Amino acid sequence: MSATRSGQLLAALPARLDGEVFETLLSHGSVRFERIVSLGHTAPAEGWFDQDEHEWVMVLEGAGRLRFEDGRELEMRRGDWVNIPAHVKHQVVWTDPHQPTVWLAVFYA
Amino acid sequence: MSATRSGQLLAALPARLDGEVFETLLSHGSVRFERIVSLGHTAPAEGWFDQDEHEWVMVLEGAGRLRFEDGRELEMRRGDWVNIPAHVKHQVVWTDPHQPTVWLAVFYA
Repeated sequence: MSATRSGQLLAALPARLDGEVFETLLSHGSVRFERIVSLGHTAPAEGWFDQDEHEWVMVLEGAGRLRFEDGRELEMRRGDWVNIPAHVKHQVVWTDPHQPTVWLAVFYA
Repeated sequence: MSATRSGQLLAALPARLDGEVFETLLSHGSVRFERIVSLGHTAPAEGWFDQDEHEWVMVLEGAGRLRFEDGRELEMRRGDWVNIPAHVKHQVVWTDPHQPTVWLAVFYA
């Protein structure tokens, strides 16, 4: 990796949001940067996210609510971040139905 | 690492900004998440940043301008991100003097 790469996280939002849209911004070794755009979506449809990687995730625009397996819930708005260690089960139980919610997710080992 | 951790990137901005303020949000293995807050600062004072780690950096609020050793400049506003590979020399040549600029920087190997 020798050249710089750049982009805009809030531009070119998907025109249709039938489901959440995941886009990889950059991937290098065991680190991956993704943009996630939601509009009133919950995820996964059934059960829990149970990931092999750690995930650091922040809301850039909009709002969402996560639930963890122990019942704890976390409201997230612009600037809120959470670090979810691998195999800590979680769900997105609500996202703003009126405007897209834009998340930056960093997955790492 | 087993417990979730969370925070707010735009809250509790430093009361004084005599210089840029760097805060580590989370560090795990070879990945480190930092918040950087600038107010009309340029950095480094002399010369270039020449880092052993790769850096993915995004503007959350405010605006800044980077310059690279090849003369290229990059204007950055809210949502703009850039990935700077290790040892790609760069400077922050301008940040907004009227409001704090909040950056998220992810350093990784």
